[in-house]
Amino acid sequence: MTDIAADILNTIRKVIDHAGSFTALHIPVFEGNEKRYLAECVDSNFVSSIGEFVDRFEGMLAAFTGVKKAVLCVNGTAALHICLKMSGVERDDEVLMPALTFIATANAVSYCGAVPHFIDIEERTLGTDPRKLEEYLDEIAELRDGACYNKLTGRRMRAILPMHTFGHPVDMDPLMEIGRNYNLAVIEDAAESLGSYYKGMHTGGFGKLGILSFNGNKIITTGGGGAILTNDEDMAGLIKHVTTTAKVPHPWEFYHDMLGYNYRMPALNAALGCAQMEKLPEFIAKKRLLAERYAAAFADLDGVRFFTEPAFAKSNYWLNTLILDRDYAEQRDEVLKVTNSNGIMTRPAWTLMEYLPMYKDCPRMNLDIAEDLVRRIINIPSSANLITDKL
Amino acid sequence: MTDIAADILNTIRKVIDHAGSFTALHIPVFEGNEKRYLAECVDSNFVSSIGEFVDRFEGMLAAFTGVKKAVLCVNGTAALHICLKMSGVERDDEVLMPALTFIATANAVSYCGAVPHFIDIEERTLGTDPRKLEEYLDEIAELRDGACYNKLTGRRMRAILPMHTFGHPVDMDPLMEIGRNYNLAVIEDAAESLGSYYKGMHTGGFGKLGILSFNGNKIITTGGGGAILTNDEDMAGLIKHVTTTAKVPHPWEFYHDMLGYNYRMPALNAALGCAQMEKLPEFIAKKRLLAERYAAAFADLDGVRFFTEPAFAKSNYWLNTLILDRDYAEQRDEVLKVTNSNGIMTRPAWTLMEYLPMYKDCPRMNLDIAEDLVRRIINIPSSANLITDKL
Repeated sequence: MTDIAADILNTIRKVIDHAGSFTALHIPVFEGNEKRYLAECVDSNFVSSIGEFVDRFEGMLAAFTGVKKAVLCVNGTAALHICLKMSGVERDDEVLMPALTFIATANAVSYCGAVPHFIDIEERTLGTDPRKLEEYLDEIAELRDGACYNKLTGRRMRAILPMHTFGHPVDMDPLMEIGRNYNLAVIEDAAESLGSYYKGMHTGGFGKLGILSFNGNKIITTGGGGAILTNDEDMAGLIKHVTTTAKVPHPWEFYHDMLGYNYRMPALNAALGCAQMEKLPEFIAKKRLLAERYAAAFADLDGVRFFTEPAFAKSNYWLNTLILDRDYAEQRDEVLKVTNSNGIMTRPAWTLMEYLPMYKDCPRMNLDIAEDLVRRIINIPSSANLITDKL
Repeated sequence: MTDIAADILNTIRKVIDHAGSFTALHIPVFEGNEKRYLAECVDSNFVSSIGEFVDRFEGMLAAFTGVKKAVLCVNGTAALHICLKMSGVERDDEVLMPALTFIATANAVSYCGAVPHFIDIEERTLGTDPRKLEEYLDEIAELRDGACYNKLTGRRMRAILPMHTFGHPVDMDPLMEIGRNYNLAVIEDAAESLGSYYKGMHTGGFGKLGILSFNGNKIITTGGGGAILTNDEDMAGLIKHVTTTAKVPHPWEFYHDMLGYNYRMPALNAALGCAQMEKLPEFIAKKRLLAERYAAAFADLDGVRFFTEPAFAKSNYWLNTLILDRDYAEQRDEVLKVTNSNGIMTRPAWTLMEYLPMYKDCPRMNLDIAEDLVRRIINIPSSANLITDKL
């Protein structure tokens, strides 16, 4: 066996040899109008729940994704919470979601008093495996009066929450069909996939609702922030209402007609978002070029492969990903140690949800593929500024 | 009867005669280091969940309030939600809170699956009346094994949530005693009272937990934001953990040991907060001077009085407040119309919680004082920049 840790370290270094003594996994790049728009926002005095930058950022997101409406939220977690609420997810319902995801996906389900139900992923996308899900539902799901129930737990299953892992689109067509056949709302967790396309359509717009995240580690950032995408304009109006405390418009009266949330993104953060959106095409181009270089550099290395976008997708390559061969899975921590101690930040995938104490008793299907892959995935530096070429 | 609407309009104008053609109720003032710190924050690249400005703003808040620890949150609503969680509020518990408050107080209780229980206010503070509350609890509360139950509903009562209305401190000493006697956590909603003191101590630090808000309409703003105050350092550590997704620190592993929330304030917003904190003493001085001028101007006007701080308090006068005499209560909407249509923004107090559809069936005591006052309260322009004197 080769010294895989040293090999990986050297191969990454070849690709990003110009970087300094420490290379983070993903940092934001502020080379546009960020400071100008922030100053404009302060000068306008509208830094809070309303302001021109909120409308502008929402318009830019809708235009970019091709989804009719974008409603800003305080972060992606809040956006997921609202999408679940809007899909009718109630206390003690179940929501199908991948075992491999960031904690926010499961937590948002918990906030509804509902129960995450973990499903397996496929190696091709690192996300929900629609074929395996279909077989599973065929076995455990039961439709009664149009509602889908889990025969094993007796609970209603209300939604599927696919997540586009590391920016790579899940196979949406068969998933949408499962949603239709089993009367399950499909909510796309596109937190990581702004700038990623499935069969030419931007992610986040396939189900009735989808979400984006603009956390500091994402392809663009607003400090903290997120958005809900929907092609349903009435739904967008309702979401705006419910995320802004459900106050009924009136020149002076404070009347709220339903349980609302304080999930608005401040205009200050939206101002940063507008500047970042102007740079998004450049970030995507650079990140795709970086991925291409990694792919070439890792092509001849034994024991590991660089994960590339599925055939049906064009990905933003949010986090570049190595997958160790099974023979080398045991060396994963050694690779992490060697790279991190040499100034190249790397990390494994998230702990699978069913290993976390608050989710260990949740229903789940056989998770063989996720169990296998999670031991072998390593994310490597992916910031757009690792490409210094003029594009 | 006099033409109270015209009289009020003219009296407000006398105090703020230098203002332009439109005077808002409360706008932020950005005359310090706001733009500089925002630019520094962008330059540092740490705009998101961690960053120097987060620590700095937390330190400034603790120093200013004299409470040991401040933990930043994404907004005051989120801060309240966490305080309730940390106080053990669970599904189907009851939380005692004033009927007169902003919707966030009640919504935060709902987010826990708990039930708001509305209590009356006193005219002296516009907040919770501890004497009336004590009499009420004497009647309806029952202690069993140290836990407090509502004899009428059978539900456990877990906490009291006083709110310092318009910045004026509630009478905390008797409230704290009620908390001790009935084993109810006291959580101070000090969203409006940064810079307000009860018997020389800053509001928000009396109970085990208190919250602040930095929404755009508050005495200082971070765009959107809030903080939790506590003198319990272990509790502060747990709150930081739970508001930042409950991730256990590790160089690369993602392990979350409990249900957490994405309630962090981004560093970008904290940067604005640091600049605003530097100006807070000036804002307080100006707002108190403005209140003094209003008090003098309204002293001789029949039919209305200017609300002044309770004897035990020093208030930030967040929102200056007129109270119409009962004979003039019917003219409230006329006053609102005349002032607003003449470029002076005014508004009534919030709709009492029990009149909102989602809270109409909640338990409540007799609310005579709140019912009476809510028809007579009018908030008038209160921004710090309405005082142009050099202080």
